[in-house]
Amino acid sequence: MNPFRALSTTERTQLGRLRERAQEDRSALYEVLDTGIICHLGVIIDGMPVVLPTGYGRADDTLYLHGSSGNRSLISAPESDICVTVTLLDALVCARSVFHNSMNYRSAVIYGRPRLITDDDERLLATRIITEHLIPGRWDHSRQPTTKEMAATALLALPLAEASVKVRSGWPRDDEEDYELDAWAGRLPVSTTVGAPLPDPRLRPGIATPGHITALAGRRIG
Amino acid sequence: MNPFRALSTTERTQLGRLRERAQEDRSALYEVLDTGIICHLGVIIDGMPVVLPTGYGRADDTLYLHGSSGNRSLISAPESDICVTVTLLDALVCARSVFHNSMNYRSAVIYGRPRLITDDDERLLATRIITEHLIPGRWDHSRQPTTKEMAATALLALPLAEASVKVRSGWPRDDEEDYELDAWAGRLPVSTTVGAPLPDPRLRPGIATPGHITALAGRRIG
Repeated sequence: MNPFRALSTTERTQLGRLRERAQEDRSALYEVLDTGIICHLGVIIDGMPVVLPTGYGRADDTLYLHGSSGNRSLISAPESDICVTVTLLDALVCARSVFHNSMNYRSAVIYGRPRLITDDDERLLATRIITEHLIPGRWDHSRQPTTKEMAATALLALPLAEASVKVRSGWPRDDEEDYELDAWAGRLPVSTTVGAPLPDPRLRPGIATPGHITALAGRRIG
Repeated sequence: MNPFRALSTTERTQLGRLRERAQEDRSALYEVLDTGIICHLGVIIDGMPVVLPTGYGRADDTLYLHGSSGNRSLISAPESDICVTVTLLDALVCARSVFHNSMNYRSAVIYGRPRLITDDDERLLATRIITEHLIPGRWDHSRQPTTKEMAATALLALPLAEASVKVRSGWPRDDEEDYELDAWAGRLPVSTTVGAPLPDPRLRPGIATPGHITALAGRRIG
């Protein structure tokens, strides 16, 4: 696994204008995927694009997706082309001109044809990876899935083979003459943060908040 | 405009399982769209789904999108079916079983065939709506777009005609027998917040931070 291996560049991952925003190292891809919590899964259903938010997890160069086995977007996905996008918003960027107002963000876009996971051990592994991505430490603390629960779950594996990362960072980039204007410019940082845990009202008495939960408070997830 | 008018329910917006999460009033749709900053635009390009993050704005029952006029996803969009999804993550939900770990979220999914805006006045209005959605008050503070800048911008109008809102809120919903387990359960709130403004290092001396910027600090955008 070489994190600096260049991301594949295909016609689809050529980003049109603003090429300077494209990142081509794999560590940037991993960082976006490992920081985010929700991806947006794009599939074609009955000839129409459908974009749905869903959880995911990553191990090495595989992205794992799961959902109800009755979920049409996942049922449609195996052996079909999909697009998975994860976006982290970092700042609102205030320029001196309307045209250059912008956002700082990091986004990963992955294209591919996912594989429906059918092997029971791999299905359990994928479930673990997705669970641990959402709430690290949760797997060992929770009741394990039953056969019936696993049967209700569709699991997909998408190779991180065709992917692109876009990043916009830094200050506004105004036209040179606009720096003379009497307009305020700058940026407002944006962060997505996990707050302090709230215990379930039905929590049994005497159960302390475990370390894997207290460790999450204050975690940046975007 | 009746904010309580039911959202249209079509085959696409029937959400499969978990129907209890579907919201059918228009005010819930407006709330998600007006709170979020980034949408994920799904289009079909060369037969493949493409999902890209982009800014947007809303006025009444129209969603406005913009992008570089060289952006393939926007060029492809007019007169084609698109899907626009906005997702707000509200909490990580820790259940007693792996299967019931979840997220609290609000998401809006809009389907439709957008119109490429060609009228100059409407193009300017759409630009204003998108700018004011990103940074309220910014329009009047910034240099207005030039003809050349407007020519570089593609603007689309998408009616909020076929849309669905899904919401998951509250506590974990464990299987009844699992409430006896010695496992911690609860939720961890997640918030996306705008921080304090950072002035551009090239800001001219003597320019104070304007009210529309200081008002943004602390704003919840998800």
